[in-house]
Amino acid sequence: MKIGREAHTTTAISGSNAETIVVRGHDLVGDLIGKISFTDHVWLLVAGSLPSEPQRRVLDSTLVAIAEHGLVPSVVASRMTLAASPEAIQGAVAAGILGCGSVILGASDNAGKFFDEIQARRRDAGVGLDEAVREVVGGYRAVKRAIPGYGHPLHKGFDPRARRLIEVAREAGVAGAYIEIAEAVDRLLPEITGRPLKMNVSGAIPAALLDAGYPLLALKGVPVLARTASLIGHLLEEQSSPIGFLMANAGAAAIHYDGPAPEGFTADEN
Amino acid sequence: MKIGREAHTTTAISGSNAETIVVRGHDLVGDLIGKISFTDHVWLLVAGSLPSEPQRRVLDSTLVAIAEHGLVPSVVASRMTLAASPEAIQGAVAAGILGCGSVILGASDNAGKFFDEIQARRRDAGVGLDEAVREVVGGYRAVKRAIPGYGHPLHKGFDPRARRLIEVAREAGVAGAYIEIAEAVDRLLPEITGRPLKMNVSGAIPAALLDAGYPLLALKGVPVLARTASLIGHLLEEQSSPIGFLMANAGAAAIHYDGPAPEGFTADEN
Amino acid sequence: MKIGREAHTTTAISGSNAETIVVRGHDLVGDLIGKISFTDHVWLLVAGSLPSEPQRRVLDSTLVAIAEHGLVPSVVASRMTLAASPEAIQGAVAAGILGCGSVILGASDNAGKFFDEIQARRRDAGVGLDEAVREVVGGYRAVKRAIPGYGHPLHKGFDPRARRLIEVAREAGVAGAYIEIAEAVDRLLPEITGRPLKMNVSGAIPAALLDAGYPLLALKGVPVLARTASLIGHLLEEQSSPIGFLMANAGAAAIHYDGPAPEGFTADEN
Amino acid sequence: MKIGREAHTTTAISGSNAETIVVRGHDLVGDLIGKISFTDHVWLLVAGSLPSEPQRRVLDSTLVAIAEHGLVPSVVASRMTLAASPEAIQGAVAAGILGCGSVILGASDNAGKFFDEIQARRRDAGVGLDEAVREVVGGYRAVKRAIPGYGHPLHKGFDPRARRLIEVAREAGVAGAYIEIAEAVDRLLPEITGRPLKMNVSGAIPAALLDAGYPLLALKGVPVLARTASLIGHLLEEQSSPIGFLMANAGAAAIHYDGPAPEGFTADEN
Repeated sequence: MKIGREAHTTTAISGSNAETIVVRGHDLVGDLIGKISFTDHVWLLVAGSLPSEPQRRVLDSTLVAIAEHGLVPSVVASRMTLAASPEAIQGAVAAGILGCGSVILGASDNAGKFFDEIQARRRDAGVGLDEAVREVVGGYRAVKRAIPGYGHPLHKGFDPRARRLIEVAREAGVAGAYIEIAEAVDRLLPEITGRPLKMNVSGAIPAALLDAGYPLLALKGVPVLARTASLIGHLLEEQSSPIGFLMANAGAAAIHYDGPAPEGFTADEN
Repeated sequence: MKIGREAHTTTAISGSNAETIVVRGHDLVGDLIGKISFTDHVWLLVAGSLPSEPQRRVLDSTLVAIAEHGLVPSVVASRMTLAASPEAIQGAVAAGILGCGSVILGASDNAGKFFDEIQARRRDAGVGLDEAVREVVGGYRAVKRAIPGYGHPLHKGFDPRARRLIEVAREAGVAGAYIEIAEAVDRLLPEITGRPLKMNVSGAIPAALLDAGYPLLALKGVPVLARTASLIGHLLEEQSSPIGFLMANAGAAAIHYDGPAPEGFTADEN
Repeated sequence: MKIGREAHTTTAISGSNAETIVVRGHDLVGDLIGKISFTDHVWLLVAGSLPSEPQRRVLDSTLVAIAEHGLVPSVVASRMTLAASPEAIQGAVAAGILGCGSVILGASDNAGKFFDEIQARRRDAGVGLDEAVREVVGGYRAVKRAIPGYGHPLHKGFDPRARRLIEVAREAGVAGAYIEIAEAVDRLLPEITGRPLKMNVSGAIPAALLDAGYPLLALKGVPVLARTASLIGHLLEEQSSPIGFLMANAGAAAIHYDGPAPEGFTADEN
Repeated sequence: MKIGREAHTTTAISGSNAETIVVRGHDLVGDLIGKISFTDHVWLLVAGSLPSEPQRRVLDSTLVAIAEHGLVPSVVASRMTLAASPEAIQGAVAAGILGCGSVILGASDNAGKFFDEIQARRRDAGVGLDEAVREVVGGYRAVKRAIPGYGHPLHKGFDPRARRLIEVAREAGVAGAYIEIAEAVDRLLPEITGRPLKMNVSGAIPAALLDAGYPLLALKGVPVLARTASLIGHLLEEQSSPIGFLMANAGAAAIHYDGPAPEGFTADEN
């Protein structure tokens, strides 16, 4: 059955024969292993060529910034999955990654697209920065869509990771149009919304990466890759110091059954 | 309901308050972002302290070596999942990671445990290297268990990535007991099995990492993390140059229906 | 950290104590096990009360109709995942389910929402059936959005499963506004689009289920549950008659490497 | 690249052409849709032929028994995944299924294999029932392996679902060697272990299904399929009455950070 309409029959990422493995045009064994960092390799795989030193530094910084923030929902889900299925670490990692969706870790991706809409307004419609921000933010608010990349439940004054990432991008000399946009949103959003929303790490990541030349459509990969590293650390800890079931039990205990029941029944559990 | 028997109620990976995020004892914003590489951070998350320069180099090399080898099964599964579910990149990554099991990418983990059994025989039973190898290999063969980390369907003479990883570990000055074991297996296995099995990348990865001090129980994380990077590259390509459905169709077309059927029915598809 | 804004602290699905498990108000052991079918239970879990006989029959029919259609992409991905990770059947099932996205099996869900938009136009704007269809289809086409639930790569004349499901809904006496809409789209779509698109199984499923009173927001569950049954059958076959790797190899062999390469390199593989 | 050694190139589950879809030898549209229940179809897909009435009743009973038991870990993980990734219901279902591993829902599968070892001892070694139980249980205890299918954290006296499932199998007339074994273990285990372990639902499910002729290697599919139904109900509730993040927050709040920290740092969160 011919499912899909695609005519593509090629890939440009890797080719090999019995002696040689080529990745993005480079001889993996002769030119890459032992010579480049994993972050260089990530950039190469995604963008198609090796990064400059500033590009590598920005990517390193964003991956370090977003990897770990304690027992966030994706980590909680992953640790309880390992507790139930210790035979399959890959399954526990997958369960954690499935929580990198539009609401939490996917916010980097959504914020990148949001900034890109503002940039397109400036370029295509020729409007000024503040006006472009107001127009695009207004469009989001009109359809009750959350502004991605601003506000944080714990770091209310400001997200120190965001401030640091913008600083690193400046130090690296890559700061450009996207950081300008991100900072304009940061300045205008409290006034527009009446709420003290400040740029968070998921706003700073796409701003810094897009200015560094990282591809827009691969932004989601950054929090996913970083979170994978975090999950590996947590799953090692779960093997020696298990808390997965205890967290599941505590989560369940916070909820009460309020549905119908036979006469005389009292729920101890939900 | 109290599921599980655990008494643990703590984590030692990350703590935070409104101003500061601590990761493994370090101030994330002040000490890590912009100052260390992602590979340093991976080691920190997993092993609990920052790596030495040789440790970081070995980890970088293994991640670079195992990340990408073309349209292997986990990549094929991931790209066809994105074709069917383009709204959820995280789901396509998860589908790819679920293929990092005991047979393919999980071989690093199994090979590490295999080497560790040999090392335990040397240490606890006080037997010589070759004898320890013969005993443990014999035990595997007695229960028809495959020897993990040796043999490759494409790189039959030897796996050039394996050779290079051992070389990097030597250059970095970390080569020790585990590489010694891996090389003894490489030398003895053809004789024991009568088959020309040579160390592959999944044998070299645990040998190099265990000698560098990487935790045995986190070995599986290395191919999982590396493959995640590869998947992000492939899923970016899939968005602009889709081949997922074509690969699914070609896979299905290689199989024929041979079950029962009503009279007169001819299957065009399975 | 308080993530999310929710004030909900209850569930109405199940409560229990040491003696009794209540599901949607019923005593699981005393009233359900051995007395109702799994399909009754599915309806109870989702809709909150036991189905009528016609409701149960329609749900049975849709689940039977969509469960199995050979080596479709989700099955291919699942079988190659089991080949790579035989230790985790749940991982292979999960990989298959991840392919139930917006393009393939998720089409039931999208078609249900599409029909519901047409129904809302009739009800809220008071326009006639054909006009409501034309307006909503026009809106989809204006933003180049595919019309879900119509057209099939193999069953081009018509999808026999769709015709049969509509027939069963009529036999069961539940056919109503949604089937009327689905048939109007079937009649008007070729004229509007100039292409011979006929209702497929993913169009008939929501039409029949919504008329039977099944909840709109749980439509996606039907193909997911049905496909899970199919995957269990395929994964049993994969254990005794493995084809997962062969399909992955055939898929990869259909694609050629066309990226850059060192001089003299010829790719045998991608 | 030829990965794997398989020579298989066929499937016996489904074949089709433009007019007809054959499933396990039956015309899907003409003979199955609207005529059989989903449970019949599950048995057909898995076992290869339609079930007898007693077989269908036993499968229905086990699926109903294991589907729902409130906010167990797989449900908790699934609901928090949907909260984070509302765009991908299939991802939340997958995350829940990934928790059907060896410790919790996978116990049915393990208990089936455990009973089958006892049955093999009786048949091959010709030992009596009690002796076969004692030998196999002794073997598990010698390697500190848990006895699957006995004991429950909430239902300590006995698991009412288990008792009911055995009763249904008796009513259906299928009770045989496996239920005999399961009951012998139930009788002997407290004496052997000194602990009041009674047969739970995951012990009764394989006993009843194996006696009914359901395939041993597909046992894991039963809790996976049943839990999928439960997840669909919970994910519908999560859309209107979200508790996923609250459960994640409560889980995290039960754990405290006890790792190293810079001087003066106090963790509010982990």
